[in-house]
Amino acid sequence: MNHVCEKVNIKMKNFIRLLIGSGENCADIRYATGISTPDDFIFYEFNDTRCAILSALEIDRAKNNAKPGVTVLPESSFDSIKRLDILLAVAQKHHCRTFAVPEKFPLGLADKMRAAGVIVTVAEEDFFPQREFKTPDEVKLITAAQRAAEAGFARAVDILKNSSVDGNFISWQGKTLTSEILRAEIDSEILRNNMLPTGTICAGGIQGAQPHNAGSGPLKANSPIVMDIFPRSPESGYWGDLTRTVVKGKAPDIVRRAYDAVLEAREYAKTLIKPGSYGASIHCAAEGILEKHHFFTGSDERGQFGFFHGLGHGVGLEIHESPRLSPRAKNALRGGEVVTVEPGLYYPEWGGIRLEDLMYLPLDGSPALCLTAAPDFLEIS
Amino acid sequence: MNHVCEKVNIKMKNFIRLLIGSGENCADIRYATGISTPDDFIFYEFNDTRCAILSALEIDRAKNNAKPGVTVLPESSFDSIKRLDILLAVAQKHHCRTFAVPEKFPLGLADKMRAAGVIVTVAEEDFFPQREFKTPDEVKLITAAQRAAEAGFARAVDILKNSSVDGNFISWQGKTLTSEILRAEIDSEILRNNMLPTGTICAGGIQGAQPHNAGSGPLKANSPIVMDIFPRSPESGYWGDLTRTVVKGKAPDIVRRAYDAVLEAREYAKTLIKPGSYGASIHCAAEGILEKHHFFTGSDERGQFGFFHGLGHGVGLEIHESPRLSPRAKNALRGGEVVTVEPGLYYPEWGGIRLEDLMYLPLDGSPALCLTAAPDFLEIS
Repeated sequence: MNHVCEKVNIKMKNFIRLLIGSGENCADIRYATGISTPDDFIFYEFNDTRCAILSALEIDRAKNNAKPGVTVLPESSFDSIKRLDILLAVAQKHHCRTFAVPEKFPLGLADKMRAAGVIVTVAEEDFFPQREFKTPDEVKLITAAQRAAEAGFARAVDILKNSSVDGNFISWQGKTLTSEILRAEIDSEILRNNMLPTGTICAGGIQGAQPHNAGSGPLKANSPIVMDIFPRSPESGYWGDLTRTVVKGKAPDIVRRAYDAVLEAREYAKTLIKPGSYGASIHCAAEGILEKHHFFTGSDERGQFGFFHGLGHGVGLEIHESPRLSPRAKNALRGGEVVTVEPGLYYPEWGGIRLEDLMYLPLDGSPALCLTAAPDFLEIS
Repeated sequence: MNHVCEKVNIKMKNFIRLLIGSGENCADIRYATGISTPDDFIFYEFNDTRCAILSALEIDRAKNNAKPGVTVLPESSFDSIKRLDILLAVAQKHHCRTFAVPEKFPLGLADKMRAAGVIVTVAEEDFFPQREFKTPDEVKLITAAQRAAEAGFARAVDILKNSSVDGNFISWQGKTLTSEILRAEIDSEILRNNMLPTGTICAGGIQGAQPHNAGSGPLKANSPIVMDIFPRSPESGYWGDLTRTVVKGKAPDIVRRAYDAVLEAREYAKTLIKPGSYGASIHCAAEGILEKHHFFTGSDERGQFGFFHGLGHGVGLEIHESPRLSPRAKNALRGGEVVTVEPGLYYPEWGGIRLEDLMYLPLDGSPALCLTAAPDFLEIS
């Protein structure tokens, strides 16, 4: 069974590096080719050859968008357009019967390739480890998406400023303001900034105690509203990521104290974004600040409470990518990373507070830069 | 090597059926669990046990949304939260060392499982073949998304009606109308209908000759504009899919003739959506109508022209799913399918025409229903 779990060092060159994925959902293939597609296609790299193989439907657009050095071929240039047959033809053409593929390569195809006599090995490291370390151009593309997230947040703040309190609820333009209405307004602003909204969270009150609850129904005054806004550029594929939590009216004391603790944790963690810092240590430092403020983490019969997610994650062609800032993160920051710093506190009694900034640690050793320009405040009167 | 390519009939019960994916990107796991997540989680089925295993971050929301009969467990209820360790614990718990997984199961994990002594086999058919055959409830959810697509199209028509022709270009509210502006208006309307826009195409003139070109820049009068609108429900995960092509002003003769041919091809193909019809035959029938109108398919040094994509595809929890209506489709329709019927003609000289309706073939043998309510017309004066 040795061939099954055989591993390769992907810096070696005696194999064909192979990816299969859609430009929209597979960040590696978009990174390698610059091509964005809804459907899967083949990319391979062998010595100086870098080749994308696509269906008729995509071929012209792919040729327009392919990165320099990437050859675009139609499936129809092969004798058979079956994926297995194409890959066997590629192996024959380059006189190489070993393919190195990423961890997520589809098992069904790999099994067929192995049955046909080629070796398929899973690359030991990330397929493009350099994706973790952003070029200045990539930072610009991420920042552009971040600006759209901020525009969406500014729109939400504007609506909340122009709302009134009607009993327990928030009223805007004569109607009860709901999560759905607020989200649609944020998302429309993102669209006007030529970015795509992708599932904006507007979770009020106790809905905010579930970090990924998108929010629904009427929004209450004097209660926290978590807004997590992560637009993506349809052209570049890069993401932005921003979270703010606000209260229309007056924040209850516990909410104000949680807000202050989370803000202090975030600002302290941001000072630790530097070369040599370990993701796990930064996470623990933030947790320590929250505990200093007497906010503890645990679970009971109602579920989890406190700070029970990772402090942050890389952002690039994936919204969640390497590196992680979490108890499980193993590596130290080196420079080039773009990461979120987003501590949060969640309690089923009153809801959640999450405050998220986006940080860039330059390659040249200079101090980390905050890519987020959105202001911090809790109450909107 | 026999174990590597071993296959199983997934109706057998002496194995654990296993999925790993995110609710947002893996339709099978959303279908099985009802849970929508941005990150991957584990689902398995063994005899009467159906179990989703998720991280702390998702657990409360997952419990709220899980389909009846699905047990939701936190990763932390296992001794180790490493995926491989969890799966080995599952195998031990059920005294079963064989897992059946879908074609796209991640190879890296499968290799590790095999190295640890469990058998991982790729299911021979679709993991949930019943996904192809929609229940009345699913048809309602698809239709709801389709209504949002139609609202987006109606908004575009309204804008074009209220536009003027300024030289070669279309002018709206005192500015040149661009693909970007028109798309943002369509997408905002989709958001107001509580659906997510996902990459709306507004491709004018020769950009429309590339079926998946999203469109950019000023839109010309007297030239076709292809609008392909495919919103998704953030709650249910089901999609709609609608394409119309219009001209602001007067359509050139060739565009009018192409439009008439595509419309006739679509309407004829729709009459063939019935039990026993083969997807390949329906595609060929549509192509025949286009050829009758002297529109031919081929390629030259500028790329492809004519009708060079499949006539249609299933729509459900994936925007492109089984069955296909294309030359490669092997099966006949049986009843229960929701499919697009979308012939198109594309010529680099003048652009493209695509007209797409969504059809539902009921399970009970009654005639196919058109789920699309958008009107057909070419010119907007």
